[in-house]
Amino acid sequence: MADHLFKHLAVAKFKEGIVVEEILSGLEKLVSDIDAVISFEWGIDIESLEMLRQGYTHAFVLTFKSKDDYKSYLAHPKHVKYTTIFSQVIDKIVVLDFPAVQSKSPP
Amino acid sequence: MADHLFKHLAVAKFKEGIVVEEILSGLEKLVSDIDAVISFEWGIDIESLEMLRQGYTHAFVLTFKSKDDYKSYLAHPKHVKYTTIFSQVIDKIVVLDFPAVQSKSPP
Repeated sequence: MADHLFKHLAVAKFKEGIVVEEILSGLEKLVSDIDAVISFEWGIDIESLEMLRQGYTHAFVLTFKSKDDYKSYLAHPKHVKYTTIFSQVIDKIVVLDFPAVQSKSPP
Repeated sequence: MADHLFKHLAVAKFKEGIVVEEILSGLEKLVSDIDAVISFEWGIDIESLEMLRQGYTHAFVLTFKSKDDYKSYLAHPKHVKYTTIFSQVIDKIVVLDFPAVQSKSPP
């Protein structure tokens, strides 16, 4: 069995007045610059019921080959720098980091 | 450009005393029974800081070809039945449903 891919998942709400597009461009640039990130997907909620969404608007999923690669991403100077910016613009966030169990794969 | 895949993402915390494995088996069975779900990944947080995790323990990401396929999943009798069980065992949950922007793809 292959090792599990490691996922870094966040749901976030940005502060009022923040130009989210700039933050997202920065994030896309960041992950494209760091080889440890093997995939990056994100989106803006368009469909969830407000009681389930709970004010969160954006979801981010970064995938790494291993937990070690994730750790190296965390320690990367570009990530550290970005974190400083990111932490100033978010209103609230939930982050989960986990080995991904792939229960159903695309055919 | 291909249409965006549609994602149904949840972070959840289960009630005390719940046998989470049974709930997860039910969920794996559910998604394997419903063709509209093209992939299902989940995991248990092992790494996030408590201040970022905020008590949530499990993450679930279901992928669909389109929003319509997601809607058909929601309306599927097996999903409706499962939702009744699931809603009784969760302590708290955040759900986001969104067209996925694939910003960095695996090589």
